[in-house]
Amino acid sequence: MEPVKAGLLGLGTVGGGTVNVLRRNAEEIERRAGRGIRITHAAARDLDKPRICDTTGITLTTDPQDVVSNPDIQIVIELIGGDGLAKDLVMQAIEQGKHVVTANKALIAKHGNEIFAAAQKKGVMVAFEAAVAGGIPIIKAIREGLAGNQIQWLAGIINGTGNFILTEMRDKGREFEDVLKEAQELGYAEADPTFDVEGIDAAHKLTILSSIAFGIPLQFEATYTEGISNITREDVAYAEELGYRIKHLGLTRRTDKGVELRVHPTLIPERRLIANVDGVMNAVLVMGDAVGPTLYYGAGAGDEPTASAVVADLVDVARVLTSDPENRVPHLAFQPDAISDLPILDMEAVETAYYLRMQAEDKPGVLAEVTRILGDRDISIEAIIQKEPTEGSDKANVILLTHVVRESKMNEAIEKIEAMKSIHGDVTRIRVESLKA
Amino acid sequence: MEPVKAGLLGLGTVGGGTVNVLRRNAEEIERRAGRGIRITHAAARDLDKPRICDTTGITLTTDPQDVVSNPDIQIVIELIGGDGLAKDLVMQAIEQGKHVVTANKALIAKHGNEIFAAAQKKGVMVAFEAAVAGGIPIIKAIREGLAGNQIQWLAGIINGTGNFILTEMRDKGREFEDVLKEAQELGYAEADPTFDVEGIDAAHKLTILSSIAFGIPLQFEATYTEGISNITREDVAYAEELGYRIKHLGLTRRTDKGVELRVHPTLIPERRLIANVDGVMNAVLVMGDAVGPTLYYGAGAGDEPTASAVVADLVDVARVLTSDPENRVPHLAFQPDAISDLPILDMEAVETAYYLRMQAEDKPGVLAEVTRILGDRDISIEAIIQKEPTEGSDKANVILLTHVVRESKMNEAIEKIEAMKSIHGDVTRIRVESLKA
Repeated sequence: MEPVKAGLLGLGTVGGGTVNVLRRNAEEIERRAGRGIRITHAAARDLDKPRICDTTGITLTTDPQDVVSNPDIQIVIELIGGDGLAKDLVMQAIEQGKHVVTANKALIAKHGNEIFAAAQKKGVMVAFEAAVAGGIPIIKAIREGLAGNQIQWLAGIINGTGNFILTEMRDKGREFEDVLKEAQELGYAEADPTFDVEGIDAAHKLTILSSIAFGIPLQFEATYTEGISNITREDVAYAEELGYRIKHLGLTRRTDKGVELRVHPTLIPERRLIANVDGVMNAVLVMGDAVGPTLYYGAGAGDEPTASAVVADLVDVARVLTSDPENRVPHLAFQPDAISDLPILDMEAVETAYYLRMQAEDKPGVLAEVTRILGDRDISIEAIIQKEPTEGSDKANVILLTHVVRESKMNEAIEKIEAMKSIHGDVTRIRVESLKA
Repeated sequence: MEPVKAGLLGLGTVGGGTVNVLRRNAEEIERRAGRGIRITHAAARDLDKPRICDTTGITLTTDPQDVVSNPDIQIVIELIGGDGLAKDLVMQAIEQGKHVVTANKALIAKHGNEIFAAAQKKGVMVAFEAAVAGGIPIIKAIREGLAGNQIQWLAGIINGTGNFILTEMRDKGREFEDVLKEAQELGYAEADPTFDVEGIDAAHKLTILSSIAFGIPLQFEATYTEGISNITREDVAYAEELGYRIKHLGLTRRTDKGVELRVHPTLIPERRLIANVDGVMNAVLVMGDAVGPTLYYGAGAGDEPTASAVVADLVDVARVLTSDPENRVPHLAFQPDAISDLPILDMEAVETAYYLRMQAEDKPGVLAEVTRILGDRDISIEAIIQKEPTEGSDKANVILLTHVVRESKMNEAIEKIEAMKSIHGDVTRIRVESLKA
């Protein structure tokens, strides 16, 4: 059979990795797919830039239109990133009847509904395995591998930069800012780390996972997002003392009232496998009603891990290129006419447990007052640690673990506690999830 | 669209689970697949036996021919087990032009080459996700999700019974026989536990994983298989002291000379995620050249976890029922004409590291002689622990960790050591794998 012809948009890290993997494993890929996959054209902004890949045999251009409009190209691989130019080009490719493979999480999370509707209309596929958790085939696992299940919830460490920082903070007792600087020097973190450490990148990915797990439209704007920049090494150490690890978790859960969709630092019991996923690695824990818990672990970023997912998508698309669109796996795992309108829950309505840390004057009655405020709101306490004031201070650190309660009640309680004269500064609040299997 | 009609062979644990999952999640499955999947007929040996499922609406029969030959049935689900009757029925179903979904690892490992050839000829699919690691979609992950990779090796905890026993031995310092008895009482182990504890069940599964990872024919007979019945709690404790866990691992690796295919107890560094997979859970660690290490974790057995995989296969098959066979994923991941004849390596030719334990007379010169025997064969030592004789004994326990060496050299060395007058009894040898990522 003739090789499938693909055109590449973007020759950066992932683009270069994709060219390298397709070249190195050409024989292996053809043995699997039954036909070769060849990148014939590639567009890049600056053709003089040094590349990590050999572009011999690929027609290079600075004009992406040469790729998107080329009648010989059957699949357009979008590896530009962002949701400006990338979106226009993807929509044009679809309009031209081309299939699309993309690693672009922002694009899918923010414009996926529109993109998939257009693709559906034209009978083409838009594949996006590489958009979530890099090389881990998590989209395929949920969409196809767990197709017999009602997914109940899933929780993921889906940002490698954040996980590297939290792992270093724990392993070496370092502070956030200090590790962030190192991560930037190592190239794990961008010069502007907002996307990673504030949870936006994770929110993009979680939005996608939530849709394919529950059959709901993509609703990135409805995600609750909280970063890790306020986590101190004290919190990491206290969590450890209580038998927990702090991870930056994306969590989505189906409840009777709606879908929880939230990214925030989270205490997880240290015996859970996912609590032991360290460094830049990613993992997603999925709870299905039939299968129980399953976990998927691997590299969430990097040129070749991401290329691994891009190439898997290329093979999938090449395989069903000529098939009836009805025979294909639907983009969001559920048939377009079977997407449900389950609402996303407001964060105030979410129920979870909490870790609270506060600075209290070391005098009688303070703890009693704090526990009264919690008790008045039916918030029961699982553990309290009081740390004696350090020399030269008159304030003790009080750490509390609560049972599960509605977030709105906890907000009230925290407001009351912060208003106490004997409590100084803000109350630190980190959510706790048991992730019980 | 009309629901797909399936016929079930076997109404035991997994059969019952499959009926239950299809019924409970009927709506969810139809929202995904675009059509319903209905079991219309089921065959069981004894129709009066109590069932875990509701069989209302299913035509029951004691004659499997009623299912296999029924012209209305499009997919036959084989959940009888074993490779006698099950094989005949699967071959007949294929002959009748029906697709097959099976959870039968022995059948696929021993007769898969013949079965897939027949299926290929008739243009039907034989799906077997449930045959390996229960509900974990590991076949799909390797066959499709990692299609861009050259798989270098994979290692799995793929027998829940064995893992439960080893976990209990470590957690509670118990002996093998004692835990086995409990596992039998709990229903985790069969009355005849040979299949599980001697590694035969794991060898079936590993044979299948090896084929789809490397594109080689199924060669169950060539698997090296060693059980866990000789592991003592002493070994478990010494391994821990050295920073390792003992797991019953299935391991297959591609080398220049051939493919390693082996199941045996293995020391794994305790920091590896897979070393922390405990109890009846399964996990498979796969190393791809592009993606690096990825790990897949979940329940390896049980009615609904296994049913989860059966239903996923049903959805996959239902989706491509009418498609051109060329558009389908090949049974063994690689196109039938692209299967390679890479030989399976003899165990003597395998290279690995070792844990050795021996009882030595507590007198000068013994250790020197042991290390000389190893040194003469270029076996270098990574660690030695000598345990003082316990009261009333004059024998010390000597524990050694070696670097990687060819198994044939280690066999020679062990023979020489066992021939020493000052060494009593057999040398215990457990292989050590770093599973470095």
